[in-house]
Amino acid sequence: MTRILIIGAGRSAISLIDYLLAHALEHQWKITVADVDVKLAEEKVAKHPNGTAIGFDIRNADHRRELIGAHDLVISMLPAFMHGDVARDCVELGKHLATASYVSEDLKKLDAEAKRKNLLLLNECGLDPGLDHASAMKIIDEIKNKGGIITVFKSYCGGLVAPQSNTNPWGYKFSWNPRNVILAGQGTAQWLDEGQFKFIPYNRLFLQTDVVASEKYGKFDAYANRDSISYIDIYGLNGIKTMLRGTLRQHGYCKAWDVFVKLGLTDDSSVVTNANKLTYSELILSFLPTAAGSLKDRLKNFVGATWDAEVEDMMDYLELFSNKAITLAEGSPAKLLQSLLEEKWKLMPGDKDLIVMEHQFEYVLPGEARTRKLNSFLAVEGKDENHTAMALTVGLPLAITVKNFLTGKINLNGIQRPIIPQIYEPMLSELKEQGISFTERWT
Amino acid sequence: MTRILIIGAGRSAISLIDYLLAHALEHQWKITVADVDVKLAEEKVAKHPNGTAIGFDIRNADHRRELIGAHDLVISMLPAFMHGDVARDCVELGKHLATASYVSEDLKKLDAEAKRKNLLLLNECGLDPGLDHASAMKIIDEIKNKGGIITVFKSYCGGLVAPQSNTNPWGYKFSWNPRNVILAGQGTAQWLDEGQFKFIPYNRLFLQTDVVASEKYGKFDAYANRDSISYIDIYGLNGIKTMLRGTLRQHGYCKAWDVFVKLGLTDDSSVVTNANKLTYSELILSFLPTAAGSLKDRLKNFVGATWDAEVEDMMDYLELFSNKAITLAEGSPAKLLQSLLEEKWKLMPGDKDLIVMEHQFEYVLPGEARTRKLNSFLAVEGKDENHTAMALTVGLPLAITVKNFLTGKINLNGIQRPIIPQIYEPMLSELKEQGISFTERWT
Repeated sequence: MTRILIIGAGRSAISLIDYLLAHALEHQWKITVADVDVKLAEEKVAKHPNGTAIGFDIRNADHRRELIGAHDLVISMLPAFMHGDVARDCVELGKHLATASYVSEDLKKLDAEAKRKNLLLLNECGLDPGLDHASAMKIIDEIKNKGGIITVFKSYCGGLVAPQSNTNPWGYKFSWNPRNVILAGQGTAQWLDEGQFKFIPYNRLFLQTDVVASEKYGKFDAYANRDSISYIDIYGLNGIKTMLRGTLRQHGYCKAWDVFVKLGLTDDSSVVTNANKLTYSELILSFLPTAAGSLKDRLKNFVGATWDAEVEDMMDYLELFSNKAITLAEGSPAKLLQSLLEEKWKLMPGDKDLIVMEHQFEYVLPGEARTRKLNSFLAVEGKDENHTAMALTVGLPLAITVKNFLTGKINLNGIQRPIIPQIYEPMLSELKEQGISFTERWT
Repeated sequence: MTRILIIGAGRSAISLIDYLLAHALEHQWKITVADVDVKLAEEKVAKHPNGTAIGFDIRNADHRRELIGAHDLVISMLPAFMHGDVARDCVELGKHLATASYVSEDLKKLDAEAKRKNLLLLNECGLDPGLDHASAMKIIDEIKNKGGIITVFKSYCGGLVAPQSNTNPWGYKFSWNPRNVILAGQGTAQWLDEGQFKFIPYNRLFLQTDVVASEKYGKFDAYANRDSISYIDIYGLNGIKTMLRGTLRQHGYCKAWDVFVKLGLTDDSSVVTNANKLTYSELILSFLPTAAGSLKDRLKNFVGATWDAEVEDMMDYLELFSNKAITLAEGSPAKLLQSLLEEKWKLMPGDKDLIVMEHQFEYVLPGEARTRKLNSFLAVEGKDENHTAMALTVGLPLAITVKNFLTGKINLNGIQRPIIPQIYEPMLSELKEQGISFTERWT
């Protein structure tokens, strides 16, 4: 029996757990699902004969090491900043590790020892990062195999809401960690634009956007991810002229979100005390420069040229000009905003979310003068508010790859991403069988 | 013999060390000056018979505890984030502690134990915080003793450069830690304006400034400090309508500094790799949105209404439009900017710095209908690039208060700031003897 430990049974883990349990009898896997909330773990295991649910606090080092020591492979679905201890324990205790998170500086330090011990440290194997890497690398390798030169690569992904469940003017509901949505983009985004390094600071990130259009779902705004530059090396695209990875939101969202950035409502580094003595209108008033007029007029004048009827509609939807009270006793501006949005942007029973991904390539084939273009597009809709497209597209790439590793299709060690054929080929073909496939448009 | 340990012998420590050594024979003090750079410590001790210089790495916990254990009172001149371990060791080993830094959350946890052990934890006892508290509280207590009600309190302080040494259009040279100047203000500033809470996010901090005028030194810009609100309680000003603490720069500095904030050059959270392959012009180009025209024209258009001849002059002075190479191999935008400014804003031999502080009060006396106003103004010029006004005004309030504590004039324990008469009265009167005194203007 191979023993698999899944840490974290939150909303993103449901498809991963379902898939692995569904293959557990066939491959003789014993699967432990551990979460700080044992009920969450029990719900997901649903009394499967090869599954065990346990309550588990990651900060309890003794229990953590005991648990990891009793398994062969660990899948961490924890928030990225919590992976560190798990990864160190895995390498020390000789266990494989798989996550959907970005490779951290901490993890890089474990690479050499993992290789020595022939341990796999699989990362960035969810949706974004994950499926984006796999699907892009398949095309990159195809073009390179024809001797082609790739000059432009832009890749966009977003977790949104399906049209039939889109009941608010923002076109957004939370299908994953709300905190990440509120804090998204803080720092400096770096990308390459026609051979020139481009840096976008947070204060302009939601204004310097691209527009991505799709036939079925209309237009999206795309803002730049923090680090596109390092993927030039990782994807083997040295010499490329334009390299951008970005995040998609419904068209119009970004200019409205920029109102919060401008106001200062996304700052997470200072605490507003006695917040529950304020309404959201008073909070916004406190952030506005002194001026005459109604709150809405002052906000409109403050925002300037990017304010329009659409933005006003989005602000109205959040009840920002009413006397809606803040419920948190205290918190950073970002936390107060999050508390409001969690109420307004909640997936309701039956709601379907939507995952959209698009890769845009420009490349030249040997002996040809012209530049060819290729668009590769994916859309996945969720089943309901629990079986989300987000959980499916985060969980399946990871679950499939873990299965392929445990059944011997993948023979790798050390830090790995789904950028090499032995990982991405079987992953993409099994996803295709499940109806998750890209539409390619060549010109 | 009383044994005093001074940790940190950097540029801000010179006046503190000089003062304590000058009083060492009289009061039978043995003084150890410890710095990671033993030469710095030796220079400051200058073979004084009661002084000892040692090399010391704060991260060496055994050495740190041994050293603290061998003294009666510790003065930490380290950067604020390094005080934590020193403070814990002091309280555990039963030693008094004095610093010029803000009271941290870590320190607050030690208050009860320090009180039990009758240990003093003196903080915020330099210039700002320090002398500002002392001089403001003297006036606040005077007005309250007359039964007056204070309605407005604004307090400003800045470390600048004296007119005769002002050789650059920014009117600024570094007299303390350059990193703090580059990162100043990140987060949200909070203050009270005519009874209304006001929050200023970083992206507007250097635009929403006050102007403070002085006869001798002309006009200054003032931007809000991060936390003015918590000083309402600390100063005993509950019910006050306006409460603001701010930082002074030469008039014009703030609108020019805002260019860097807008561009994104003060971000310290991302790394520009291969920075030394870029010039500063190329760095700025990378931060600018795509547009036609020369770099200077593009920057001017990007900045918009706040760009003027004065700002252009300041940017020219920094050689931002020339081919000046970046020398750091990599670093955050903030570090790359710091590296340039350390070269351009260096105090040169003979240069005199300037400290300016102003408190502005409005208050009503019993039986009077009118509002009275009081301005209290201080200016101190340095002697030369080493004996700075900054080192003098940071070091003397701390040194004098340590002397007064060790000689029994102060009888306090736990966390203390210079806000009570037994601390501020002898401090202010001794500073006055040394020529550091405020000019008061009542109306």
